[in-house]
Amino acid sequence: MKIGLDIMGGDYAPEAAVLGAILAHKALSGPKLVLIGDKDIAVKILQENNYSPDNFEFVHTTEVIGMGEHPTKAIVQKADSSISVGFRLLKEGAIQAFSSAGNTGAMLVGSMFSVKTIPGVQRPAITSIVPQVAGGVGVLLDVGANADCKPEMLLQFGMLGKLLAEYVYKIKNPRVALVNIGEEEEKGNILSQAAFPLFKASTLFNFVGNVESRHLFDDMADVMVSDGFTGNIIIKLSESFYEIALKKGIKDEFFDRFNYEQYGGSPILGVNAPVVVGHGISNPEAIKNMVLLSKDILESGLIDQITQAFQ
Amino acid sequence: MKIGLDIMGGDYAPEAAVLGAILAHKALSGPKLVLIGDKDIAVKILQENNYSPDNFEFVHTTEVIGMGEHPTKAIVQKADSSISVGFRLLKEGAIQAFSSAGNTGAMLVGSMFSVKTIPGVQRPAITSIVPQVAGGVGVLLDVGANADCKPEMLLQFGMLGKLLAEYVYKIKNPRVALVNIGEEEEKGNILSQAAFPLFKASTLFNFVGNVESRHLFDDMADVMVSDGFTGNIIIKLSESFYEIALKKGIKDEFFDRFNYEQYGGSPILGVNAPVVVGHGISNPEAIKNMVLLSKDILESGLIDQITQAFQ
Repeated sequence: MKIGLDIMGGDYAPEAAVLGAILAHKALSGPKLVLIGDKDIAVKILQENNYSPDNFEFVHTTEVIGMGEHPTKAIVQKADSSISVGFRLLKEGAIQAFSSAGNTGAMLVGSMFSVKTIPGVQRPAITSIVPQVAGGVGVLLDVGANADCKPEMLLQFGMLGKLLAEYVYKIKNPRVALVNIGEEEEKGNILSQAAFPLFKASTLFNFVGNVESRHLFDDMADVMVSDGFTGNIIIKLSESFYEIALKKGIKDEFFDRFNYEQYGGSPILGVNAPVVVGHGISNPEAIKNMVLLSKDILESGLIDQITQAFQ
Repeated sequence: MKIGLDIMGGDYAPEAAVLGAILAHKALSGPKLVLIGDKDIAVKILQENNYSPDNFEFVHTTEVIGMGEHPTKAIVQKADSSISVGFRLLKEGAIQAFSSAGNTGAMLVGSMFSVKTIPGVQRPAITSIVPQVAGGVGVLLDVGANADCKPEMLLQFGMLGKLLAEYVYKIKNPRVALVNIGEEEEKGNILSQAAFPLFKASTLFNFVGNVESRHLFDDMADVMVSDGFTGNIIIKLSESFYEIALKKGIKDEFFDRFNYEQYGGSPILGVNAPVVVGHGISNPEAIKNMVLLSKDILESGLIDQITQAFQ
């Protein structure tokens, strides 16, 4: 079993990515870590840190997709970029999971182009963790892959999130809720009003109704479903509160759990392999946890579960 | 000049509303306060607090629109409710401004039925204050009146917000931004992608581009425009962080500024009179500030400014 890591992705790559690979290697037992990117630089960083390059496999690449580049163009034009090569390896089965703290759009497009969307899934979704005040975590999706959604897509996100919560976060019979601007069935915009009856009628998962954004941290649901525009607004706003608290020196266990480092990134759900995107500002600890999350997804059998559920 | 206050609106009405009226009366110089609701109860509360009923005018009503009632039905069916009567007085010119901490939807519908939308305004918007980390405030709209919006509506919200910022919050040449999930022009959902070029081409206000939800508190703009679904998600999520901080005993000047008490509520912009909706959980201090905000809007000439701008 081999896990691929893009060592060129992220604001502090390759340094942070390679140091993260060291931490991940120490934590991993079993799977081999394949570092994809500039091998010479990677070996140099490893040697500077007295860590043997023999602990890893390398696939050398010569190009890098920048954080601001257009995803589709970049994937096509930079065939020897670490992300493009990573997805080629994933498609060929040379690695079984791939993660990167690089260009999120390129990771999304790359996964759809290479390993493809799972049959029956309309659109993959990007997920994020929502810490709960009482402890534990919730799952929020979509957080940015699909700015405009149809009601049926939201229903599928509910199913994808449910399986993630169940198989990776080990939550039994996860409660699935729709993120909305009111608790009552008839509240919301056209999308949420159309989605509600679909959710209510569905036997795919344990639907618990609408959840307002004021209750996202109140253990009302394990899986919170929104369109990608709303989900992205939510995670970035939440992160800003965490960062403001951090800057102000506010020490609090709940706020600390918004620290992206701990969660290792956002799985792209609905494609035929474990793909995890890390935060652009990932430090070595975040990179390590991103790799471990991709391993957890791989070992959980989540992809098979999704494939069966959407048959 | 007379300012109307619904003393039956809000979770802690009429007690909190009448006590708020006392505080408002002490702070007001000039305008007469008209208390709309159950006069007997109001007089009793005033006497219990050794405050002369002679300080107010009263309009006795016998019905109350509950927080959970359907706005349009309630306004029509409860003709003698404090909100319905308040709007009748406003329409007839017996009062020049009206505020309530009651049913937001009923306040919106009531204002559109009675004093009507200002000619040229497609849809009124509800506004909220966004405290800035560096100090000062921003204005966010719409925060719930219009869950689904057209690009032209967002453009109008920009104009309404600009005039509020300029005439009530005394911000010169307010910077107007679109709330979006990326800074670049092409980012976002269909709505924000369609709105951007309208904003860019407009000479109505000082457009400064997209603002991500991570930067809402970073003094990037004075007026932040969103559809009512997104805006509502933002204010309720922000409030939850404030409440979590409060429960955890975190004392911080920035977080404290999310305290709804200080701002007195949300103006409904785009109707032919100053109408302010208070938070359902308003205490006397919040009620006082709601009344003072309605007075500020009245004295600022904002309604005339909007009327002229939309001619």
